[in-house]
Amino acid sequence: MEVAAYMQKLGQQAREASRVLARSKTNVKNTALLTIANIIRQQADSLKAANQQDLLVGKDKGLDAAMLDRLTLTDARIEAMAEGLEQIAALADPIGEITDMRYRPSGIQLGQMRVPLGVIGIIYESRPNVTADAAGLCLKSGNATILRGGSEAIHSNQAIAACIHQGLQQAGLPVTAVQVVETTDREAVGQLITMPEYVDVIVPRGGKTLIERVSTQARVPVIKHLDGICHVYVDVDAELTMAEEIAFNAKCHRYGVCNAMETLLVHADIAEHFLPKMAQRFIAERVELRGCPVTMAILPAIKAATEADWDTEYLAAILSIKVVADSDAAIAHIHRHSSAHTETIVTENYTTAQRFLQEVDSSSVMVNASTRFADGFEYGLGAEIGISTDKLHARGPVGLNGLTSQKWIVFGSGQIRK
Amino acid sequence: MEVAAYMQKLGQQAREASRVLARSKTNVKNTALLTIANIIRQQADSLKAANQQDLLVGKDKGLDAAMLDRLTLTDARIEAMAEGLEQIAALADPIGEITDMRYRPSGIQLGQMRVPLGVIGIIYESRPNVTADAAGLCLKSGNATILRGGSEAIHSNQAIAACIHQGLQQAGLPVTAVQVVETTDREAVGQLITMPEYVDVIVPRGGKTLIERVSTQARVPVIKHLDGICHVYVDVDAELTMAEEIAFNAKCHRYGVCNAMETLLVHADIAEHFLPKMAQRFIAERVELRGCPVTMAILPAIKAATEADWDTEYLAAILSIKVVADSDAAIAHIHRHSSAHTETIVTENYTTAQRFLQEVDSSSVMVNASTRFADGFEYGLGAEIGISTDKLHARGPVGLNGLTSQKWIVFGSGQIRK
Repeated sequence: MEVAAYMQKLGQQAREASRVLARSKTNVKNTALLTIANIIRQQADSLKAANQQDLLVGKDKGLDAAMLDRLTLTDARIEAMAEGLEQIAALADPIGEITDMRYRPSGIQLGQMRVPLGVIGIIYESRPNVTADAAGLCLKSGNATILRGGSEAIHSNQAIAACIHQGLQQAGLPVTAVQVVETTDREAVGQLITMPEYVDVIVPRGGKTLIERVSTQARVPVIKHLDGICHVYVDVDAELTMAEEIAFNAKCHRYGVCNAMETLLVHADIAEHFLPKMAQRFIAERVELRGCPVTMAILPAIKAATEADWDTEYLAAILSIKVVADSDAAIAHIHRHSSAHTETIVTENYTTAQRFLQEVDSSSVMVNASTRFADGFEYGLGAEIGISTDKLHARGPVGLNGLTSQKWIVFGSGQIRK
Repeated sequence: MEVAAYMQKLGQQAREASRVLARSKTNVKNTALLTIANIIRQQADSLKAANQQDLLVGKDKGLDAAMLDRLTLTDARIEAMAEGLEQIAALADPIGEITDMRYRPSGIQLGQMRVPLGVIGIIYESRPNVTADAAGLCLKSGNATILRGGSEAIHSNQAIAACIHQGLQQAGLPVTAVQVVETTDREAVGQLITMPEYVDVIVPRGGKTLIERVSTQARVPVIKHLDGICHVYVDVDAELTMAEEIAFNAKCHRYGVCNAMETLLVHADIAEHFLPKMAQRFIAERVELRGCPVTMAILPAIKAATEADWDTEYLAAILSIKVVADSDAAIAHIHRHSSAHTETIVTENYTTAQRFLQEVDSSSVMVNASTRFADGFEYGLGAEIGISTDKLHARGPVGLNGLTSQKWIVFGSGQIRK
């Protein structure tokens, strides 16, 4: 009950602050961002001291090495936070943009104005840098934020929040524009995602378990990113050297990322020619290959793929390979097994490329490029709050525009309905 | 359990049909729409016969006159259904539209392609014409539909569905592109709104109870329309004759519609001058007025408004009136009590108008025009599936574009991430 009342208070304060932010001028928001960046740089030592507290508790609790690494604030990471905020300040302000004003036969002039969503709740795990990144994106897009980080990062997050509050205050903005939840009680999350009167959208950032829990229990819209089971399809008309480079890059550039390829689809008529050399390259890179029966006939030394492989996001040096009859079969496989994140076709055939682009129902569909390009920075969004695998509202990399909405505006001169 | 299996089957069939619809050419979809329109005209007698069955059952059940009226299919309403489909056929096809293709420094060319959402579930009450209207909009936007109408309209809806299926077949499209749920078991709705694997979005059309129940229980995104508590604010700088016309039109053009004014806000400095004449006009039209204390001092004959009045969508010849200190107070009242549907300011002051446009957080914000313009036809969307009071995805009148999503597309020439 105490947690509920506390979260309600944060919600009310956020709603009030959101009204102020919505009408704040671009230069005020930018001043706040740049001031926060400077304060973060100046406070590097105290940020590291707070972080040290979290690390000590984390080691005591027996957090694993990967988790401790994500939790650690180094000088480089602190500088990256500050630079991230400066980059956000340099982005164009999406708010207030008016588009498509046209006269209607009634005489009214109608168009759309881009406005903030209002209050955004961010739920994340152990990376403290998310506090600054997410707050920065929300601030620039005129939204108030309620941030709920992992309990293991509580001291780091509060130290970063102190820098943010100082910056907001110096810029003349309400400190309640960015609020970090101060309790580690899990009930706080339950409250945050069920206050539609105060929170307009929730962005969960973290593992699949967190995201699924939030999505199931939320009574507020959720912008979510589940799996990244991405495919590269090498068509019969592919330029095979290009196909090899793209497939290799899509798998091996980084393993633990959502836009890495997890399944390679190969047209039956080129499989015998293409797969042996391709496999050699993967094996030299120590990628474990798992094949369908046809693949196994060509590459007898590799493991057999099970049905579960087609639905698995490895996030590791593992690749499943399937030979398909044609591009229709590739598209059918993708529709059945893909997480609708990113898929690529490699082909020189115009019609095949056009059909793949049109029919594949994923947030990013590419021709002759690595799936690794599906990313807010590569797409020029400047920064991303996440990659959405939803179809409604924001799809794919979510930048500033994904944190806004468009309302209709009407300029009249006394028009009434007849 | 039987209902669950039945709904799962409908869902699977819809998902498969959605793949076909997504790649269907514009002329095929238009042929289907025009053919269905013709068949509906030809089958007018059998539609009325089926409707007669529903009406008999409805009278037996003791449905009230308004409900029976909504349920009735007259020749005029049948013709309107056919014409509605022809109008949808005449609209531009939103699907496949590619926007903003630009080269990124990496060499990839990036843009967005408009695509269908996939499968849309429509839940509605007794109006059988929704069956044709909703199916037409979904079909044109390349979406498969599962329609669940009110049980009192089951025969009418199935007769309309038969016309739709005949038309789909003649156009060479799968009949499962539009499916009408054949059971009146309420469990069917519960299933429909909890099958995210088969249904991409739910559009409930009907009373508030229906919409709230669907929103609370759905595990699929919902495009919803709750209240329409719309405001007209007459500013100190209003042209008062214009203000009177707009306020009168916003209230009296039609009472039972969501874009009608429910509360009139008046600047304190003009209230004494403006309200008496305005009130006279409303009273002559038999509109019941309910005022705040300041209004009551000016119009002592009217009823006092209670706190509940500011939060009530009358949908009737009742109007609440409040005198406010200035435009900031008007905006504050709107933010507290509006349903974020449509608000109008009447003013000749540039700065006041700009601030109202920017700060009022509603789906339509107007200057010097009647709230009654907030409508898909008036906005030139051609037709609307509803008016959304949500902020995410579609906001305000939802036409064809609201039934689509945009995916990212990338044209590469062998690019890999470095």
